[in-house]
Amino acid sequence: MAPFEQHLFICTNQRPADHARGSCAPDGDDGLQKAFKKALAERGLTRRIRANKSGCLDQCEHGPTVVVYPDGVWYGGVTTADVAEIIDRHLLQGDPVARLQLAPSCINTASCPHKPRS
Amino acid sequence: MAPFEQHLFICTNQRPADHARGSCAPDGDDGLQKAFKKALAERGLTRRIRANKSGCLDQCEHGPTVVVYPDGVWYGGVTTADVAEIIDRHLLQGDPVARLQLAPSCINTASCPHKPRS
Repeated sequence: MAPFEQHLFICTNQRPADHARGSCAPDGDDGLQKAFKKALAERGLTRRIRANKSGCLDQCEHGPTVVVYPDGVWYGGVTTADVAEIIDRHLLQGDPVARLQLAPSCINTASCPHKPRS
Repeated sequence: MAPFEQHLFICTNQRPADHARGSCAPDGDDGLQKAFKKALAERGLTRRIRANKSGCLDQCEHGPTVVVYPDGVWYGGVTTADVAEIIDRHLLQGDPVARLQLAPSCINTASCPHKPRS
């Protein structure tokens, strides 16, 4: 076989409910990662594309956060309702889902307007 | 700021000691990921390169496993003794550490000679 053609990392990090940076998986479950995994399996894609659990991706204020490699596309505020669209439009057709995509200027910054305490 | 230039995912998955596929983190700790994180911090690289905890990367028989994106370079059998070499040679000089690199033919395969039960 060969390496994955695309590799998704879905943050499943959980912080206390009152943590300043929020939490990608506030309920402590991995429901979003499981939804990606199930949808990939239904499409027969699990050998080509992997939906991986990830520790903190450090973009917490935009969570739940997903990054797709090798594309280097970052998504924020992802819910299970977005899973099919990300797979069918981005992963299969090469067209990232713009409404969920994080701008490069919003990544790894202390000054992003979406960060409430910046 | 901008997205990470390189993003390492270090498997911290733990299975029971007698599990057929082995375990990337048999002692249940994240020592390897912490060693990468510390070494990156010492070199002032944490804004450019992130060492991320990851769930199971599904290459368990070659563990402890690390994958570097967007390069798409996979490493197997990585220990804390290899951390400086991976950072200084691969990440900073663009020269992957061949002795630790997993061949594409060893990834996602049932027939790899390194897999004892194949």
